[in-house]
Amino acid sequence: MPFKKIFLNEKDIPRRWYNLAADLPSPMQPPLGPDGNPLKPEMLAKVFPMNIIEQEVSTARWIDIPDEILELLTLWRPAPLRRALALEKYLLTPAHIYYKDESTSPAGSHKPNTAVAQAWYNKKFGIKRLTTETGAGQWGCALAFACNLIGLECKVYMVRISFDQKPLRKIMMQTWGANCIASPSGQTHAGRQILKKMPHTPGSLGIAISEAVEDAVTDKSGSSRYSLGSVLNHVLLHQTVIGLEAKKQLKIAGERKPDVVIGCVGGGSNFAGIAFPFICDKIHGEKIEIIPVEPTACPTLTKGPFTYDFGDTAGLTPLLPMYTLGHGFVPEPIHAGGLRYHGMAPLVSQAAVEGLINPRAFDQIKCYEAAMLWAKTEGTICAPETSHAIACTIDEAKKAKKEGKEKVILFCYSGHGLMDLAGYDKFLSGKLTAYSMPKHKIEESLRPLKNFPKARKIKTGRW
Amino acid sequence: MPFKKIFLNEKDIPRRWYNLAADLPSPMQPPLGPDGNPLKPEMLAKVFPMNIIEQEVSTARWIDIPDEILELLTLWRPAPLRRALALEKYLLTPAHIYYKDESTSPAGSHKPNTAVAQAWYNKKFGIKRLTTETGAGQWGCALAFACNLIGLECKVYMVRISFDQKPLRKIMMQTWGANCIASPSGQTHAGRQILKKMPHTPGSLGIAISEAVEDAVTDKSGSSRYSLGSVLNHVLLHQTVIGLEAKKQLKIAGERKPDVVIGCVGGGSNFAGIAFPFICDKIHGEKIEIIPVEPTACPTLTKGPFTYDFGDTAGLTPLLPMYTLGHGFVPEPIHAGGLRYHGMAPLVSQAAVEGLINPRAFDQIKCYEAAMLWAKTEGTICAPETSHAIACTIDEAKKAKKEGKEKVILFCYSGHGLMDLAGYDKFLSGKLTAYSMPKHKIEESLRPLKNFPKARKIKTGRW
Repeated sequence: MPFKKIFLNEKDIPRRWYNLAADLPSPMQPPLGPDGNPLKPEMLAKVFPMNIIEQEVSTARWIDIPDEILELLTLWRPAPLRRALALEKYLLTPAHIYYKDESTSPAGSHKPNTAVAQAWYNKKFGIKRLTTETGAGQWGCALAFACNLIGLECKVYMVRISFDQKPLRKIMMQTWGANCIASPSGQTHAGRQILKKMPHTPGSLGIAISEAVEDAVTDKSGSSRYSLGSVLNHVLLHQTVIGLEAKKQLKIAGERKPDVVIGCVGGGSNFAGIAFPFICDKIHGEKIEIIPVEPTACPTLTKGPFTYDFGDTAGLTPLLPMYTLGHGFVPEPIHAGGLRYHGMAPLVSQAAVEGLINPRAFDQIKCYEAAMLWAKTEGTICAPETSHAIACTIDEAKKAKKEGKEKVILFCYSGHGLMDLAGYDKFLSGKLTAYSMPKHKIEESLRPLKNFPKARKIKTGRW
Repeated sequence: MPFKKIFLNEKDIPRRWYNLAADLPSPMQPPLGPDGNPLKPEMLAKVFPMNIIEQEVSTARWIDIPDEILELLTLWRPAPLRRALALEKYLLTPAHIYYKDESTSPAGSHKPNTAVAQAWYNKKFGIKRLTTETGAGQWGCALAFACNLIGLECKVYMVRISFDQKPLRKIMMQTWGANCIASPSGQTHAGRQILKKMPHTPGSLGIAISEAVEDAVTDKSGSSRYSLGSVLNHVLLHQTVIGLEAKKQLKIAGERKPDVVIGCVGGGSNFAGIAFPFICDKIHGEKIEIIPVEPTACPTLTKGPFTYDFGDTAGLTPLLPMYTLGHGFVPEPIHAGGLRYHGMAPLVSQAAVEGLINPRAFDQIKCYEAAMLWAKTEGTICAPETSHAIACTIDEAKKAKKEGKEKVILFCYSGHGLMDLAGYDKFLSGKLTAYSMPKHKIEESLRPLKNFPKARKIKTGRW
């Protein structure tokens, strides 16, 4: 029988991260400061350590992974590449379906790939304490895990409604030694202001970011910094180990290259991880279709404009050139909490502008149907975010069947769903809601951006 | 740096299960029927399919694993052997600590090893539907997963208190297509009787077994059978892939043999899985210390007598020769639900009688301390059951340090703890209770066994 899994030896773990900025045919536009001028790196020095800021602005193609970070990554990496033989058989598709299994990390998703790197750089810079925010809890868990290993204090501002609804995530973070509190909290100026106005607010990711950033930059010891789990260049960079490993593994599986690469997108980090090394190949002439999949409830790439916008709801971050639904956009409460982000990583956005990637949007009911078929065939219970990649994979496998083509499909299995079972319960009891985003709602939420600096849609026209 | 994981190729998965009964120096005593006479295999025909009953009574040393079961096992097997380098470093021990990681199965524990085998044999025998009971939910999830893959209906009677306290486990089972209901239920005679007497009972594993067995044997279609997740010979047999793989992996790691093998014990199945292949080596002359670890709250091997007793609380099963605290024993509510079993697998019991294994009991507070140190060093959150094996491993590693010996310690990481975080929460908030079992309580619960047939303590005296 054909194999179902390909493992790499620890010595075959990638030694360098891949930086797409070096290969994008058009240059990246800079983030802008509050004055509308390009941000100077040193202006971020209170938020991030300088070694990470240097990475954020680097245009080097390859960046060496320090040995100590490799040592940490090998706790669970290289991650297996699996082949979904049972799903192929069920679909009677000639396609070969491969997936990179990022659910095997201790936190259960791809997030620790950047968490251990960020924690290590901060520690090296002399930082003693990291702050962050978390929504559904995946990122908070990953950073708590990393800080625990490396020996940093960790404070996580968790959106109040998730804090109350997902007590298990909080316990995970505490087990890893992090201090996890509900946001808005009484511990920051931003939090207190919100609580005064809205004492019963369920909180939001925007508010939690404001609190985490304020906490880091106002810490008088100067040894706190803030850490972000997606969107920024250095975060996406750290995730490229996913695609780099997958490339080696596909070769071992006897496949020259994938025909289709698929990943779900919220802020863009797991998608970038699996896709960027293959976008590189595409830029250099390979024919590969690369598909980011987003929820119809938050259709950033498929329905938003490319423009400068804030990374957070409160407008504390620099302005970033990206696809966005407006920083005030509040997505419907779909279960894929990790995909409920108004914007899109600038690197992913520029790849979309160039036509290097072909975004699609899927409704969550279709995604849960795909997740159920996955559980029936491949046996595992996937995260609600991951179900978007699976739904698209099934579509592509059916298309291959119709066309009679033996396509190679590769997708990123970004995380398991064992901590997020409520959506399955709703689906099984027929109570899951389908959401789409009417045009007027998007227009409304984009209105505050009217007078923002415009990002140029730089497109070389080669794709 | 030394490696942290050893994977085997799928082609290196064991092709045969190892049956300890063939090598035990003393013969196994038979299970006894209600009349006190040895049970005839056909008396079990309404409960289990004949192909499984044949396995249950087999004394063949090696039993071939059918190709179709191998195909199912390769969904996640061979499981990785990992080395706990970070823990070794933290403890400054010269010991090499290896662990077989059974948490990588879709259900998160070793249980699917036997679940897919049992489901397959039932399907082959023409059975259409399996019933079982579950306490904490690990076994119910594993059987639901297996039936889903193989195409059998699955009905799980889940102890009422767990059903209410662990809704996530129920959702997992439902996602895998099983019908999971709270026990006692109104759907069986046994359940209705109990509900009449005690309408608000939290239920018990004993009651749930009674319901599941009654459901299977009274199904008029004749195509239902019952499935058990531990204790019986065939269940332990199916788990031996764990130890057989670990042997090959230790060789690859450059270790001739382990000096110490450790597993937690409840009914005995994960312990048997890791230990039996090494007990075989011990019988054939190797010096290996083999340690089953049980909770002080349920000290079957360390404080119970070896005698005939029922496998269930209600007295529906045959009498089995085993270490037991009495079938009426109700263990304190420790978090390691999988270790709250009054008896012990007959094969494990006979190995203990022979002195081939050296049982120890650990209190749950010491076990959670070990689990916290594990999370701090190795990064993963283990199941409360697994924490018992870790606590003992840490003791052994410290002992090796004191003795200055470069010992090889191998333990079974039987499952992850992501579905069982409540115990961590209690530990972190200082509310965890230590339990021990006073002698008089054990004596009391053993009183009903006074007139039971006696099991002979057959000991060849070679260990």
